[in-house]
Amino acid sequence: MKLKHIVESQQFTVPKIMELFERTNQMKKIVARGGTRDYSNRVMATLFYRPSTRTRFSFEAAMYRLGGKVLTTEQAKEFSSEVEGEMLEDTIRIISNYCDAIILRHHQEGGAKRAAAVSGVPIINAGDGSGGQHPTQALLDLYTIYNECKTLDGLSVAFIGALDDGRTVRSLAYLMSKFDRIKLYFIAPGDIQIKPDILDYLKENNISYALAKNMDDIINRVDVAYQTRIDRNRLQDKNLDLSVYNIDTDVLQKMKYNSIIMHPLPRSVEINTAVDTDPRAAYFRQAKNGLYVRMAVLSMLFDEA
Amino acid sequence: MKLKHIVESQQFTVPKIMELFERTNQMKKIVARGGTRDYSNRVMATLFYRPSTRTRFSFEAAMYRLGGKVLTTEQAKEFSSEVEGEMLEDTIRIISNYCDAIILRHHQEGGAKRAAAVSGVPIINAGDGSGGQHPTQALLDLYTIYNECKTLDGLSVAFIGALDDGRTVRSLAYLMSKFDRIKLYFIAPGDIQIKPDILDYLKENNISYALAKNMDDIINRVDVAYQTRIDRNRLQDKNLDLSVYNIDTDVLQKMKYNSIIMHPLPRSVEINTAVDTDPRAAYFRQAKNGLYVRMAVLSMLFDEA
Amino acid sequence: MKLKHIVESQQFTVPKIMELFERTNQMKKIVARGGTRDYSNRVMATLFYRPSTRTRFSFEAAMYRLGGKVLTTEQAKEFSSEVEGEMLEDTIRIISNYCDAIILRHHQEGGAKRAAAVSGVPIINAGDGSGGQHPTQALLDLYTIYNECKTLDGLSVAFIGALDDGRTVRSLAYLMSKFDRIKLYFIAPGDIQIKPDILDYLKENNISYALAKNMDDIINRVDVAYQTRIDRNRLQDKNLDLSVYNIDTDVLQKMKYNSIIMHPLPRSVEINTAVDTDPRAAYFRQAKNGLYVRMAVLSMLFDEA
Repeated sequence: MKLKHIVESQQFTVPKIMELFERTNQMKKIVARGGTRDYSNRVMATLFYRPSTRTRFSFEAAMYRLGGKVLTTEQAKEFSSEVEGEMLEDTIRIISNYCDAIILRHHQEGGAKRAAAVSGVPIINAGDGSGGQHPTQALLDLYTIYNECKTLDGLSVAFIGALDDGRTVRSLAYLMSKFDRIKLYFIAPGDIQIKPDILDYLKENNISYALAKNMDDIINRVDVAYQTRIDRNRLQDKNLDLSVYNIDTDVLQKMKYNSIIMHPLPRSVEINTAVDTDPRAAYFRQAKNGLYVRMAVLSMLFDEA
Repeated sequence: MKLKHIVESQQFTVPKIMELFERTNQMKKIVARGGTRDYSNRVMATLFYRPSTRTRFSFEAAMYRLGGKVLTTEQAKEFSSEVEGEMLEDTIRIISNYCDAIILRHHQEGGAKRAAAVSGVPIINAGDGSGGQHPTQALLDLYTIYNECKTLDGLSVAFIGALDDGRTVRSLAYLMSKFDRIKLYFIAPGDIQIKPDILDYLKENNISYALAKNMDDIINRVDVAYQTRIDRNRLQDKNLDLSVYNIDTDVLQKMKYNSIIMHPLPRSVEINTAVDTDPRAAYFRQAKNGLYVRMAVLSMLFDEA
Repeated sequence: MKLKHIVESQQFTVPKIMELFERTNQMKKIVARGGTRDYSNRVMATLFYRPSTRTRFSFEAAMYRLGGKVLTTEQAKEFSSEVEGEMLEDTIRIISNYCDAIILRHHQEGGAKRAAAVSGVPIINAGDGSGGQHPTQALLDLYTIYNECKTLDGLSVAFIGALDDGRTVRSLAYLMSKFDRIKLYFIAPGDIQIKPDILDYLKENNISYALAKNMDDIINRVDVAYQTRIDRNRLQDKNLDLSVYNIDTDVLQKMKYNSIIMHPLPRSVEINTAVDTDPRAAYFRQAKNGLYVRMAVLSMLFDEA
C-alpha cells in the first residue's frame, strides 16, 4: 500500500501505521546523529492559510533534518493577493511546479482533498477547517501513546475539553478505533461534546465508548488523558464551572501510576504547570515526537513516489 | 553585454534574450536531474513590500534548485518598523551586505531603479507599482511563446482585459516589439485600455498594432491570446458586459489550432476551467517556465558579476 | 567562561569580548572566502514577536554563511494562534525541540530571560521590550568602535537622541563601562533623557559621564557620536527644536578628523544624507559588522555547547 497524499487519518491501515512507526524510530536515531543529507535535492513548501508557528516549524525542521529545503508562508491568506473567485486549485497547480511536497493548512474543510485532486506532488493536510482533520497530529499522538504505553491494544483513552471543534481529537479517534479492545471516553460540557459523526463511526466499528460531563469515576481508570483547550470566550455566558475540566495535582493523584497526560498544545489554564514535572506529563515529549513522525511521513512519501 | 541589475524589460537586447533562453533550456535539464549545487555559497533575499506567494516561491524555488540559500519576507512593508522618512535606499544598503542578490517587489513605481542605484548586489525587479514593470514575468512570458510557437518573429498577439494597470502586459509589449513583423492587439473596455506611453513606444518603433473593444474578428487570427484579469469592482458601476472578455469553449472554437492562451495567473472568471484541458491552454506551462527562466536570470547575474 | 544564552550585554567580561572579537575577525575572512559548511547540521529559529526585517536577515544571513538552516517568523505574535494565558515558556519548550538555537525578539521586557530559563537550546535576545536589551546590537556597536578607533580604552562617546527607550544605547553603555578612562555624554531633551538606572550603574562603577541638552561644546571633542532616532510624534506638542539633535555637514565640520558617526538604523531625518560620503560616517560599516559579530556569537554558542 503506497500513499501519495496524506489527507485524513483513515487512510492509514494498521500495517502502514506500524511501518511508519518503525521509520519514526529510525528518524530518532538519525536526528541524534545530526540528521541526514539524503533528501538534499528536495524542496518542501508550507502553504499555511491559517498561521501556526509550532506546526509549521515542526514540518520545516523535519525537512531540514532530512537535508532538504523549505519554501514558507506564515499567513498565505492575508498575504496572497487573493482575488474574487481565485481557486485554491490554481494555486496548487502552480506551486506544485516549484516543490516536491506541499504542507497545506487551509481554512475550509475539504481544502486538502481539493488540493490533492490537482497536485502533481504529495499534499499533506496540516489542518483543514475546524471540522476537518490534521492527520500527522493524530499520527504523532498515536506514536506517543505507542511509545509511552508500549502497546496500542486494550487501552482506555479519555478525551477532555472542547471536543466539537477538535480536529486533533477527531483524527485520533479514527486512528485509535483501528486497534483492539479500545475504550474511549468523551468528557465535555454538552454544548461542545464530540459530534455525532464520530460516534456513528465508533458504533459501526463496534468500538466501546461513553460520554460524560466530568472526569469523576473515569480519570482513575484511563491509560491516557487527552486534554484539549476550552475557549472560555465561547462558553462564558453559560454559567458553567469549567474548572472541573482542568488537570491539576489533585487530579494527578487519582490517575493510574502508569497513565499519561497528553495535550496538542498550546495550553491555557487547563493543565496546571505544577503537573509538568510529573513523569506522566507526556505533552512535551508528544510535541517532540512531531519532528520524528513528520520526518517519517515526508521520507515515506518521497521514497514511495 | 553584461547586466548587473534587472530593472525593466527594455534592458534586454535580442542576443541577450536568446542567450538567456539557451541558459533556460539548460536549467530545465538541470531540474530534471535534481538541481545543482553550483551556487551553494550564494544567498538570495526576497524583499517583498507587497505579498505574492506565487512569485516569491518561484524565485525562491529557483534559488534552491541552484543550490543556494534564501532570506525571505512575506510582507516587508507591514512588518518593517518603517518609520517616517525611512529610506528604501538605506534598507537596500543594509540588506545588500547580507546577501548576493535582492528580489524586490516595491509598491512604488521606480522603486527598483532607486534600489539598483545604491545596491552592492544585483537587484531584480519583481514588480514596482501598478504602472511599473515586472521584467522576469515578461521574460518567462516571452520564453513560453518561443517554446510553444517555436519562433518570436511574425507573431500576432492579443492582449485582453485590464490593460491599463497591467505591469505584465506593459513589460511584454516592450519585449515583443524587439522582434520582426509583430502585430499587437489590445482588447479592453475604453476605461482600462493600454496607456498611451506604450502606444507611443510602438509607433516610434514601427510596430503594427490595433485597439479593440471586443475579440470579434481578432481572436480567430492571433497566435497568442494573452488574457489578464479584470477587477470587476473597479468597473461594476459602468454597466459594461465584461463577459465578452472571457475565454470559454466557444471562443476556443474560433481560435487557430496552433494558437495558445496565456495568463499571468491568478485567474478569476475570465478563463473558464473547461478550457484547461485544451492543448492550447498554455498558462500552467507558462507558470512552470517561471522556475527555469528565474534560474537562468539568477545564474547569469551570479556568473557575470 | 562559557555562555549558554545571550540575554544581556553585562554577561560579557572583557576577556570574553576580546575572544568574541577575535572570532569576529575570523568570520570576516570566512565570508570573503564564500562561507563555511562547518555548521551544516545546525538549525536556527528566528522567533520574532515584533517584526524587524534587518535584524532578522542579519541573524539568518549569519547562519547561512555558517552553512546552517533557518526556521523563520516574520511576526510570530500576530500569526500565532496565541490564546488567552498561553505561555511563552511552552512555546520555547516546544520550539527548542526543533532547532539548535532560538533568536528571540519579544515584546515584553524580561522575555528573553524567561525563555532562557526553560530552553533546551541557546536563546539569543534580539530585543525584549523597549526598556530591555539587545545585546548583539551592543556587541556589533562595540566591535565597530574597536575596529574604527583601534582601541576601547580612553574613548569619549556621545549618545544623541531618544535615549529613554533606547535598548541599543542602554546595552552599549553597560558594555563601554567595562573599559578604562571612558567618558560618556548623553545628549537629549529632558523628557527623553537616559533613565536613572543607567546613571546609577555608571556612578557605582566610577564611569565619567555628563548630561546635556545639545551638542555644543561636546561634539567637537568626542571620538564617537552615537546618533539615535527621535520619534517626532512623541514630542510634537512640546515646542522643542529637535533639529539641534541632527547631524549635518555643519556638525561634521566641528567633529574631530578621526572621530566616527554611528546609528543603529533605520534613520529618519536625524543624519543628513550629505554626511553619508564622509569617511567618518560609520553607520553602514556598523550594519555590515552585524553579520560577522552574529556569526561569531552563533558559532561560539554552538562550539561551547
